[in-house]
Amino acid sequence: MDKILRIDMGAEGGPKVTVSPVGAYAGLGGRSLTSSIIAGEVDPMCHPLSAGNKLVIAPGLLSGSIAAMSGRISVGCKSPLTGGIKEANSGGQPAQMLARLGYAAIVLEGKPKDDRLYKIFINKDGAKISEDKSLRMLGNYQVVEKMKGEFGDKIACISIGQAGEMRLSAASIAFTDMELRPSRHAGRGGVGAVMGSKGVKVIVIDDAGRQTRQPKNPEKFKAANMKFIEGLRAHPVTGQALPSYGTNVLTNIVNEAGGYPTYNFKQGRFQGAAKISGETYAELETKRGGLATHGCHSGCVIRCSGIYNDKDGHFLSKQPEYETVWAHGGNCGIDDPDKIALLDFLDDDIGLDTIEMGVTIGVAMDGGLIKFGDADGAINLIKEVGKGTPLGRIIGSGAAVAGKVFGVEKVPVVKGQALPAYDPRAVQGIGVTYATSPMGADHTAGYAIATNILKVGGYVDPLKPEGQVELSKNLQIATAAVDSTGMCIFIAFAILDQPETFQALLDMLNAFYGLELTAEGVAELGKKVLTMERDFNARAGFSKIHDRLPAFFKAESLPPHNVTFQVTDEELDTAFNW
Amino acid sequence: MDKILRIDMGAEGGPKVTVSPVGAYAGLGGRSLTSSIIAGEVDPMCHPLSAGNKLVIAPGLLSGSIAAMSGRISVGCKSPLTGGIKEANSGGQPAQMLARLGYAAIVLEGKPKDDRLYKIFINKDGAKISEDKSLRMLGNYQVVEKMKGEFGDKIACISIGQAGEMRLSAASIAFTDMELRPSRHAGRGGVGAVMGSKGVKVIVIDDAGRQTRQPKNPEKFKAANMKFIEGLRAHPVTGQALPSYGTNVLTNIVNEAGGYPTYNFKQGRFQGAAKISGETYAELETKRGGLATHGCHSGCVIRCSGIYNDKDGHFLSKQPEYETVWAHGGNCGIDDPDKIALLDFLDDDIGLDTIEMGVTIGVAMDGGLIKFGDADGAINLIKEVGKGTPLGRIIGSGAAVAGKVFGVEKVPVVKGQALPAYDPRAVQGIGVTYATSPMGADHTAGYAIATNILKVGGYVDPLKPEGQVELSKNLQIATAAVDSTGMCIFIAFAILDQPETFQALLDMLNAFYGLELTAEGVAELGKKVLTMERDFNARAGFSKIHDRLPAFFKAESLPPHNVTFQVTDEELDTAFNW
Repeated sequence: MDKILRIDMGAEGGPKVTVSPVGAYAGLGGRSLTSSIIAGEVDPMCHPLSAGNKLVIAPGLLSGSIAAMSGRISVGCKSPLTGGIKEANSGGQPAQMLARLGYAAIVLEGKPKDDRLYKIFINKDGAKISEDKSLRMLGNYQVVEKMKGEFGDKIACISIGQAGEMRLSAASIAFTDMELRPSRHAGRGGVGAVMGSKGVKVIVIDDAGRQTRQPKNPEKFKAANMKFIEGLRAHPVTGQALPSYGTNVLTNIVNEAGGYPTYNFKQGRFQGAAKISGETYAELETKRGGLATHGCHSGCVIRCSGIYNDKDGHFLSKQPEYETVWAHGGNCGIDDPDKIALLDFLDDDIGLDTIEMGVTIGVAMDGGLIKFGDADGAINLIKEVGKGTPLGRIIGSGAAVAGKVFGVEKVPVVKGQALPAYDPRAVQGIGVTYATSPMGADHTAGYAIATNILKVGGYVDPLKPEGQVELSKNLQIATAAVDSTGMCIFIAFAILDQPETFQALLDMLNAFYGLELTAEGVAELGKKVLTMERDFNARAGFSKIHDRLPAFFKAESLPPHNVTFQVTDEELDTAFNW
Repeated sequence: MDKILRIDMGAEGGPKVTVSPVGAYAGLGGRSLTSSIIAGEVDPMCHPLSAGNKLVIAPGLLSGSIAAMSGRISVGCKSPLTGGIKEANSGGQPAQMLARLGYAAIVLEGKPKDDRLYKIFINKDGAKISEDKSLRMLGNYQVVEKMKGEFGDKIACISIGQAGEMRLSAASIAFTDMELRPSRHAGRGGVGAVMGSKGVKVIVIDDAGRQTRQPKNPEKFKAANMKFIEGLRAHPVTGQALPSYGTNVLTNIVNEAGGYPTYNFKQGRFQGAAKISGETYAELETKRGGLATHGCHSGCVIRCSGIYNDKDGHFLSKQPEYETVWAHGGNCGIDDPDKIALLDFLDDDIGLDTIEMGVTIGVAMDGGLIKFGDADGAINLIKEVGKGTPLGRIIGSGAAVAGKVFGVEKVPVVKGQALPAYDPRAVQGIGVTYATSPMGADHTAGYAIATNILKVGGYVDPLKPEGQVELSKNLQIATAAVDSTGMCIFIAFAILDQPETFQALLDMLNAFYGLELTAEGVAELGKKVLTMERDFNARAGFSKIHDRLPAFFKAESLPPHNVTFQVTDEELDTAFNW
């Protein structure tokens, strides 16, 4: 992982590959690397779809090693959705393979002058780029099938569906899992549109002939990894809840807490919640011959994913994540688990952010386009995106655009990005993260649900403004650091509660690189990443005034707790004081 | 003009009227009044379609008097298109009538809880508001016909078409001319969407029983007005060019100067320009029994408007303005005067900003939706807006949204508003106005074409950056003041070149109000208005970084002069240093 693969898609005579040492970017990985490259090399005033933008795909610091949970991959660019810097990350196999091939990052630069569509094949011998007209307007599943036919089944793929090709602002980038399904996504911020603007349909990775990355101190590393795994298995969230029910274990919990945004953020509880809970999905998965427990990448010990089959036992989609189930479920008044799974599959196939899609359809429902609860109508809307009809293009452009086009006042977005599955009035800590994160509304950027609701890392009353800024700040710092390691963010539950598990993570990093990183050093890395990202955004025109929730969260109270968002603007403005 | 008519459209039990003295707003008119009310009473962070926004409609300081050219009316709100403060003004009869009824402004506040649609009738006895379901989704022409049937033909109307009802961001507000045609528009910034969000379809004004407003010093006023008229008749632009050919006299001039944006700002000259010039239109108007010279409101002595008939001598549209002919013409590669006139009529009827529509269609053409030059395709797109189809709603939402939805990189907007008919690379002074005006890209906010191209008020080389900021600054100050008088902005040509005509304007204001206003006082008023508007925008999240042209104007040079926009960011940032 000592080199960067740059591909100039706009070079004279066709795409041009350059491999260079990491140089000044040495010691960075994942989000710290993607954000460094974007902040340092991209003009914040450039159009996100222009040749001046770059798409950076980077495994984490421990990816490709035997470290558990190290399969996370980061994608960075200037976001077509927010207009600010973007890091979206994903599970799946590509992180491990890219890291084993020695690449700290792939950087797609420039832009073809025509609308040619390319595939990129990367293996131990380097990168080959070729035009492939046959891939035009295919969904991710079909793209991967074709790549398997061409390159065999020992590969991993990074691809875009129709949405990315159309450069829609809600387009995701798909990463294949261990079964070569394009079911893991860098979902948020329209990263797929940037890949589409570069004319790249798929990146195929084959790490044959390459070995697991070796640590500087193998013994220490192995011991720390064991301790780390032990900690994950011991914690109730990572050891029991997530393996059993996946992220969707949260439906009942958040609904019970009254923070489950329902009918486009009108109320905090959904009557149909039990019908679409993680418990229900797990039962259906087991009954229909799917899998309730499954890992999305090699080295995963939490195994929060799953396989969801239809009534006849045929694959319908991977087990939909909590935020997906919420976005297409309660937020749209839909309580049919099969239809939600189909929506999940369509989003994955067309290459769309499930959160953005659910919120967009909720906004369209509020605008009267279809009725709340109309599952078939919602399915049809996502299919329209795949077809590229005008209606589909509106939906695929996200909630802010749909709000404008349908003349809707209530549009739950921050910096143009849709709010995820936790109402900021009933979980005020996450409201601080939504408002202030340089990413736009993003729950993963500082997951205050942990402390507000799950009582992990202490407890802060979710209904009151006190302590929320401090909570969100610390979580945002920690997350920016974890996002740089290549570790799945779910390790946070264990490392927040168990000092010895956090120490094991530090020990792994230190043993791998021969460092002496401390907790303070990790926090410094997190702060450095956030500062860099906020500086990019400032140069792109963002100020504290953009660190705000939409006005209705302060004006309309949310049942059942009948609360409004109470954290003041002045408090929000202190979120990055350190 | 000593009272303000406020209508709370969201009051319990239905709309509620309050008439109050102008109070703290005394001495203000037109833009200075609308911007004062918006800046003082509207939360800059409110959603433009929410109950918290207000729509202010205000005649100017001299409206309703015998002063020539005093029929301009201002509309103010927080803009759904830009997210900033908006003042859009229009000709037509309502200014004179409202002023005679004694209203300094109408302020629509609040928002109905349901989707009821209202009409408002205002006469000497006050205001009556009634629901009228029969008006739903009618075009402006049909609305006015219905109002004539109900209230007779001595009225004036302020109305929205289908676009405003759908709350689309490019929706205009129509004002009837002397023949009761809804052909004059407050076009820019989506003011019609705000009227639609208030549930108001039409405001009917009848000034029967009211007299011309009387000046404090009638003799002085009359003498100054005569001198003012004399000056307008003596100046070649207001005395000859505009009466003969209307604003479209500019097609040949701007095309010759190489500043005529063609094919979505790809080049500065259009081969078909002569076919759609003001000279061509005037000839067709005369030949077909229309009118090449016509005034849009009583008291107009420039008479730059006209009546354009079809081949069979039937009314097709009012004489399309230069910016309309350009937007639907050269910018879209269309050179058929009849089809452009039809597009103008459709925009007026559906209630759409012609500039935003032409630029939006140009962007859609660049995105491959239809081909450049496809006039029937363009006509169809505007008709789609009227029908409210998804495609129509995209187009009616303006160029920025269309750019996102169609994944187009080259989107000529500033602060979300489309650039008008003068390329900022070939006319760098207007580029400064586009970039820095608090209104978004708006040629009328500081019409540097006057000095860059027409050599009015001196001369500044249009192709060089030197002197452009100073030029734009002074014009923006003067315009903010003129927009407050209720005077048509075209008086600027004469008052910039002829000191005695400017003095006559001052004399009129002083004689009317018993003031001793000087040139410095006028400049102070202009600065005060701009400062207030910029402060509102700052509170809404705008900073100097938003005072920029899209990056491509600096990166791509414009034929035939092969120039880029050369004014530096640092220079732009001095535009409001005074």
